[in-house]
Amino acid sequence: MDWPGRFNDCSNNRLEDSEIAAIMRVAAADNALSLAAGEPFGALYPVGPLQESFSKVLSSDLPIWGYSNTRAGVTGLRRWIREWMRRDGLVPEWVASENIFITNGSQEGLSLLSECFLDPGATILVESPSYPEALGVFRKFGAKCLGVSLLPDGPDLEAMETMLAGQRIKLFYTIPTFQNPTGYTTSDEKKRRILDLAKKHDFLIVEDDPYRNLSFEGSPEGTYLHAAGDDKRVIYLGSFSKIIAPGLRCGWVVAPGEVTEKLIKLRVMGTLCLPELLQNAILDFVAGIDLPRHLKTLSDTYRRHRDALSSSLREHACPEGLEITAPGGGFFLWGRVPWIRNMTEFAYFAIRNEKVAIIPGNIFFPESGQGVDTIRLSFSKVIPAMAEEGAKRLGEALRKFRILQQERKPE
Amino acid sequence: MDWPGRFNDCSNNRLEDSEIAAIMRVAAADNALSLAAGEPFGALYPVGPLQESFSKVLSSDLPIWGYSNTRAGVTGLRRWIREWMRRDGLVPEWVASENIFITNGSQEGLSLLSECFLDPGATILVESPSYPEALGVFRKFGAKCLGVSLLPDGPDLEAMETMLAGQRIKLFYTIPTFQNPTGYTTSDEKKRRILDLAKKHDFLIVEDDPYRNLSFEGSPEGTYLHAAGDDKRVIYLGSFSKIIAPGLRCGWVVAPGEVTEKLIKLRVMGTLCLPELLQNAILDFVAGIDLPRHLKTLSDTYRRHRDALSSSLREHACPEGLEITAPGGGFFLWGRVPWIRNMTEFAYFAIRNEKVAIIPGNIFFPESGQGVDTIRLSFSKVIPAMAEEGAKRLGEALRKFRILQQERKPE
Repeated sequence: MDWPGRFNDCSNNRLEDSEIAAIMRVAAADNALSLAAGEPFGALYPVGPLQESFSKVLSSDLPIWGYSNTRAGVTGLRRWIREWMRRDGLVPEWVASENIFITNGSQEGLSLLSECFLDPGATILVESPSYPEALGVFRKFGAKCLGVSLLPDGPDLEAMETMLAGQRIKLFYTIPTFQNPTGYTTSDEKKRRILDLAKKHDFLIVEDDPYRNLSFEGSPEGTYLHAAGDDKRVIYLGSFSKIIAPGLRCGWVVAPGEVTEKLIKLRVMGTLCLPELLQNAILDFVAGIDLPRHLKTLSDTYRRHRDALSSSLREHACPEGLEITAPGGGFFLWGRVPWIRNMTEFAYFAIRNEKVAIIPGNIFFPESGQGVDTIRLSFSKVIPAMAEEGAKRLGEALRKFRILQQERKPE
Repeated sequence: MDWPGRFNDCSNNRLEDSEIAAIMRVAAADNALSLAAGEPFGALYPVGPLQESFSKVLSSDLPIWGYSNTRAGVTGLRRWIREWMRRDGLVPEWVASENIFITNGSQEGLSLLSECFLDPGATILVESPSYPEALGVFRKFGAKCLGVSLLPDGPDLEAMETMLAGQRIKLFYTIPTFQNPTGYTTSDEKKRRILDLAKKHDFLIVEDDPYRNLSFEGSPEGTYLHAAGDDKRVIYLGSFSKIIAPGLRCGWVVAPGEVTEKLIKLRVMGTLCLPELLQNAILDFVAGIDLPRHLKTLSDTYRRHRDALSSSLREHACPEGLEITAPGGGFFLWGRVPWIRNMTEFAYFAIRNEKVAIIPGNIFFPESGQGVDTIRLSFSKVIPAMAEEGAKRLGEALRKFRILQQERKPE
């Protein structure tokens, strides 16, 4: 059967393979020590309290077994999220619970927003580097992703202005807080200037903010959403995946009513509704625990992981040419190895020769051929005892890879 | 903010409102007795055994809290479904567990398949009448839906051949068993002839089969999927929503490997993965209970509901001009009131005047203006004690609506 002849343009030409997934598969098959995972540390899943919340919801008379009538998500959870974000100063006055739309993780939010706004040929602005599964969605819908260099305090404004002068862009996709992959945070000052640019050039801002609550040094910078005030051009994505458990598949979108109405229609056509059991269990959990304390436990643990990995790397891998910047929160260390010309090749070399997995930074760049000397290292799941071993293996892999490179040179 | 100017063509022009949902909202607000619901009877949700399955899974060491690595769905559940379908003679030899792809209800299957195959302008064939939320998805992706009349034993073959002679169609979407809305079942003989047409004119068949296990008179007819054998042009959609509980949002697609590979990529871009907790609980439930007995309980109950409603209607509503056909399974009675020219108007009249809710049949037709005298009545949630009251109210609404029509005529 001629399948390519039956598939549409999207399936034939716009569905990308996940390069992270490919590396993780090889790493798992080779039983490598992983500095690659972009997921939470399993020991931090609050399993006991979640089990209790599930038991409560399962034996309640909540309407968890039938179709969900609230297609934007469980009303109580949407109210709770709105209050929580309001208390933390993350949302402007206009945000009501009707502006909260629950999703199957942030990925569904990205997908539905793309389906809502992007046409083939649309041009959007993204941070360079950025989250590949977001870039993949945008491209799936036929959008052209222009990358603006990300500096430690946020996007390069001069580069951004130059790009905006040359073309009309539909939206700017940003992960402003403890970004994936860089760990960088956009300063509030830069957010204000980017909002001015957004007004002037009339584009939307999609703010993807899953790492906000994993801050190692007090409160992080504010949100674009709040800074925009009554200018409703910011659409915000939140997630419980990093702070509760990603297996519950629960994130949310904050958006103006005109947008949430479209999202509801897209939801009905896409999946009818989401399971209420999971949403109600999350609501019971967050409403019942001491949330600031839970978040502090997470941040304290991840801070220790960051410190252990970065000091071990400084000892064992930086002497081989690795340069790293340690973030103020989140899961990731971002680095460079200036003498490496193909980090993907190095990644497979490191797994096969030293059984250590890293993610090559180049796969986060919207344009191919960029960031070939960059590297993403994740500390989220790396306990301090593993950090030293991982750093040693990485150092050894770098040493051997350099020798290999030098041997190749004469050819 | 100019939202229509920002939304894409799909959001502005191809997202439809659910007319069923609109009627159900009015019916709920008016506290009407409902002969309209398209959902299972809540008392049949196997809540006790499901609670036990959830408890077991929640306290197990299954990887339910993290991201799912099996993006096509939980492996054990896919194996179980394959075996179950094989035992029931529903799948041909080539179907392995790799050909089973778990979905957030059948709606996600319809959506992902549309995303995989349909381009704006694609022409597809659908039964007339058919399930509106499927037609809505196809149209969302820009497809043109051509309706082929559905007769009690399946599609009108002559009409189908005429249509196929005139144009190239991409796929035929069918609900062959106890169809929504008609309750009709396509005979195996017609399935074979339609498969011949599919080969001759080279189109795919999408077989949506959620009501199969709710058969009132023994085993229903077979599947297109099995009848097609090695000709892999049939993609099958199954669902646990009608036989376990729709709140668990679990259905599946059976498709050739080339298609499931695309579905996996679309899943990653759309939602990353589905919650494993729900899939594991379903697996524990189906593997642990006496499934044939559970399905017999469901069928026996729905048969009683069908019998009660159809006999009450014959007594109280048919004398006012209602004509009905009772199905061999599923949830729905399909009917006509030949003197009604606008069933939607009657539906709102019946809610407001007699507090009884029905679904106007016209909304199931792919072309507007058709089926204006048709009506869908659901017995799934109507216990025998309610059936008589419902039928009386419907009869009374018909009587009053006829008088209103006659009063209008002179004008």
